[in-house]
Amino acid sequence: MPTSPVWGSRLKTRGVVLDLIRAARTISRVELAASSGLTPPTISEAVRDLMTDGLVVEAGRGASTGGKPPTLLQLNPNARYSVGVQLERNACVIVIVDLAGRQVARTSFRGTAQMPPQQALPFLATHVNGLLDAAAVDRDRVLGVGLVSYGPQDRHAGLLLTPQPTDEWFDYPVAPRLAEILGMPVVLDNDAAAAAIGEYWIGTVDPRSTYGCIYMATGIGGGVVVAGEVYRGSSSNSVEIGHISIDVHGDECPCGNRGCLENYAGPAAVVRQALDTPGLADQLVLDPAGTDFLSEFARIAAAANAGNADARHLIEQSARYLGCAAVTITSLFDLDLIVLAGPSFAVAGSIYQTLIQQEVDRRTFARRAHPVRVVPSVSGSDAAAVGGAVLVLQSELTVGHAHAEDGMLPVRITSAGSTSSTRSPRDQRSIPE
Amino acid sequence: MPTSPVWGSRLKTRGVVLDLIRAARTISRVELAASSGLTPPTISEAVRDLMTDGLVVEAGRGASTGGKPPTLLQLNPNARYSVGVQLERNACVIVIVDLAGRQVARTSFRGTAQMPPQQALPFLATHVNGLLDAAAVDRDRVLGVGLVSYGPQDRHAGLLLTPQPTDEWFDYPVAPRLAEILGMPVVLDNDAAAAAIGEYWIGTVDPRSTYGCIYMATGIGGGVVVAGEVYRGSSSNSVEIGHISIDVHGDECPCGNRGCLENYAGPAAVVRQALDTPGLADQLVLDPAGTDFLSEFARIAAAANAGNADARHLIEQSARYLGCAAVTITSLFDLDLIVLAGPSFAVAGSIYQTLIQQEVDRRTFARRAHPVRVVPSVSGSDAAAVGGAVLVLQSELTVGHAHAEDGMLPVRITSAGSTSSTRSPRDQRSIPE
Repeated sequence: MPTSPVWGSRLKTRGVVLDLIRAARTISRVELAASSGLTPPTISEAVRDLMTDGLVVEAGRGASTGGKPPTLLQLNPNARYSVGVQLERNACVIVIVDLAGRQVARTSFRGTAQMPPQQALPFLATHVNGLLDAAAVDRDRVLGVGLVSYGPQDRHAGLLLTPQPTDEWFDYPVAPRLAEILGMPVVLDNDAAAAAIGEYWIGTVDPRSTYGCIYMATGIGGGVVVAGEVYRGSSSNSVEIGHISIDVHGDECPCGNRGCLENYAGPAAVVRQALDTPGLADQLVLDPAGTDFLSEFARIAAAANAGNADARHLIEQSARYLGCAAVTITSLFDLDLIVLAGPSFAVAGSIYQTLIQQEVDRRTFARRAHPVRVVPSVSGSDAAAVGGAVLVLQSELTVGHAHAEDGMLPVRITSAGSTSSTRSPRDQRSIPE
Repeated sequence: MPTSPVWGSRLKTRGVVLDLIRAARTISRVELAASSGLTPPTISEAVRDLMTDGLVVEAGRGASTGGKPPTLLQLNPNARYSVGVQLERNACVIVIVDLAGRQVARTSFRGTAQMPPQQALPFLATHVNGLLDAAAVDRDRVLGVGLVSYGPQDRHAGLLLTPQPTDEWFDYPVAPRLAEILGMPVVLDNDAAAAAIGEYWIGTVDPRSTYGCIYMATGIGGGVVVAGEVYRGSSSNSVEIGHISIDVHGDECPCGNRGCLENYAGPAAVVRQALDTPGLADQLVLDPAGTDFLSEFARIAAAANAGNADARHLIEQSARYLGCAAVTITSLFDLDLIVLAGPSFAVAGSIYQTLIQQEVDRRTFARRAHPVRVVPSVSGSDAAAVGGAVLVLQSELTVGHAHAEDGMLPVRITSAGSTSSTRSPRDQRSIPE
């Protein structure tokens, strides 16, 4: 049986109306009815509810179309906030965004490196609390925290299904534990999926677009958004572009696959290639025993931008490999846009953008059907953290409320921890999505 | 602005109810209400409409749960029919299916080879008319024809965006022209997408599954189905798995990409490899100048099944290459099932199934999150044609009725021809989906 459609649910209606107001910035009730296909009385009721909750406010009058000028509505951006936390080995970012998706506070710091989760999560919580205090954000107005990191994940249980960077992380309940420390709801999601949806919410992406995001930090991930919603697949472990094979005869990767993109194009691979290039390591002061691939990669990228031929060759080679994978996701998902996000694109964006665009233009299967644009993320290095915060806003305000009480806006998410102890054995369960 | 949701539309309700009855085979009104989330009066009204139109009939009584045993409902399979036509160079299949998706007539014949469309379409129409006459199907009950073929396509205009097999095919309005000859609506779609949705409609796929179909005839295509609907992307040119690169350093393909899967694993590639294997060509009587790769490939597959070591090596090698691409689509779409469909899998199914399953189990990124099964299509060689017919049923009966009159079941689709003359220039337009 298909999942029950909740036709005409009052809460779903509120979500649709709220998202239309958000997307339009200012809009009248008449325009809301026209855009949504809902009747004027239904719109009026939903708007009244949203105004009572303080989520929507009136914003003057629009242009008259003959009669009385219509009252315009807009979000009340200070009504709610959410926090985005990017968990990464080499660079962490935390942001607070308001209901309109605008960043109101931000901090970044060196990543959690080889810390076990028992140490890393209190460390992250200290930063979150510090940022909330510094920004003087009322905690009662914080919907929750979007914790974003690499995959594979069990998103519903809020844990990572990988022993990266240390064995303790595998199967550790990161989201429930962070929720416990912070005393607020925490949802776990994929960093690249977060970056992708963040682009939609705060960026300039056409809402009808089917677009992809390639996210490059220490690793390479991907996300696809279809009509404003993240493509999830059967367990929210989709678009793992860093671990698709670009060479069927390539070397085995620790992930189990062979010839993985990440081992050709990712920061660690480029650093390794630089160490193998005579003279370049000395010239750029690269550490053969280093593990902070993000900084070392940034030095190579900076040298490429400054005209160093060897460095430029390596970055261009990385871009061509990424171009190959970009063509693959474009031909598979039939994308009309690719967004490049994350710190490793941020340092050499124009080289990557130019060469990936060339590959996509030349090699995508359906290039005669429509053009495919390659653009940098509007959020650059912060894209994943901003997206994590946006995912909280989106899931709380517009979709996924099937289990909430009709007509009530849930300000608190059920703690993810409760699902952890009832999981069936790993090899038998399927993760419903 | 997002597309208008048509909340509570009477027609959409009918579609939901009809699809629930189809999926359940027999179901009571009470069970329909429970499954759909719709109120009992809404269900009663929708069922009354469907019975008036002859689409649904009563089918005795179910088991009592205390009170009066409930009346069961089922589809009236003879109420409507649709036709599926698979257009292929080396093998064409035409099927007629009833409302329940059951095949009521079938014919197959050698493909359209190098015929130009001006010759191929009347040829196909003659076969369609002959099959309808032979099966004595009332044309007033035929919803339309699903014409399925390879991509890229402009699905809305009903034309192919490829000069395969001859230049005349590029941009030729195949669907409008066939509609004109047959005097009935014709929709064009991708053969692999059709095969995928056909599996859902008539097969044993879990409706919540996110699954992929790899379709191998002369070429290799793919389709993904999410919760019972084909994943479309921005222009319905998605999942072109035959033209993703499995070797970034591989040879250029006529499609513009390099290292394409089809050139390693497809029937023509296997035939070429067999011709290069000393002695094998003579042994299997392969024609070095032949173009009917399907039959030649079938001879190699038969030899592999019969224990010929050289032939088996080639089929296994093809299966490993396909396994690499299967891992790619699984890690990108996060699939829980892969269906192998089409004539070229039908001749060596167990070798392909075993080896692709091995690769997926070993190399898929999220294999710790859930298992991924690889299975043969229930429709085998006919999967695309059956799927073409099913797509007509699905689009006419359950979804995509936003423009139809509320409460009216459209028995005739708007001719696809009307959109052809109003297209904007190829390089400027985007195809809405």
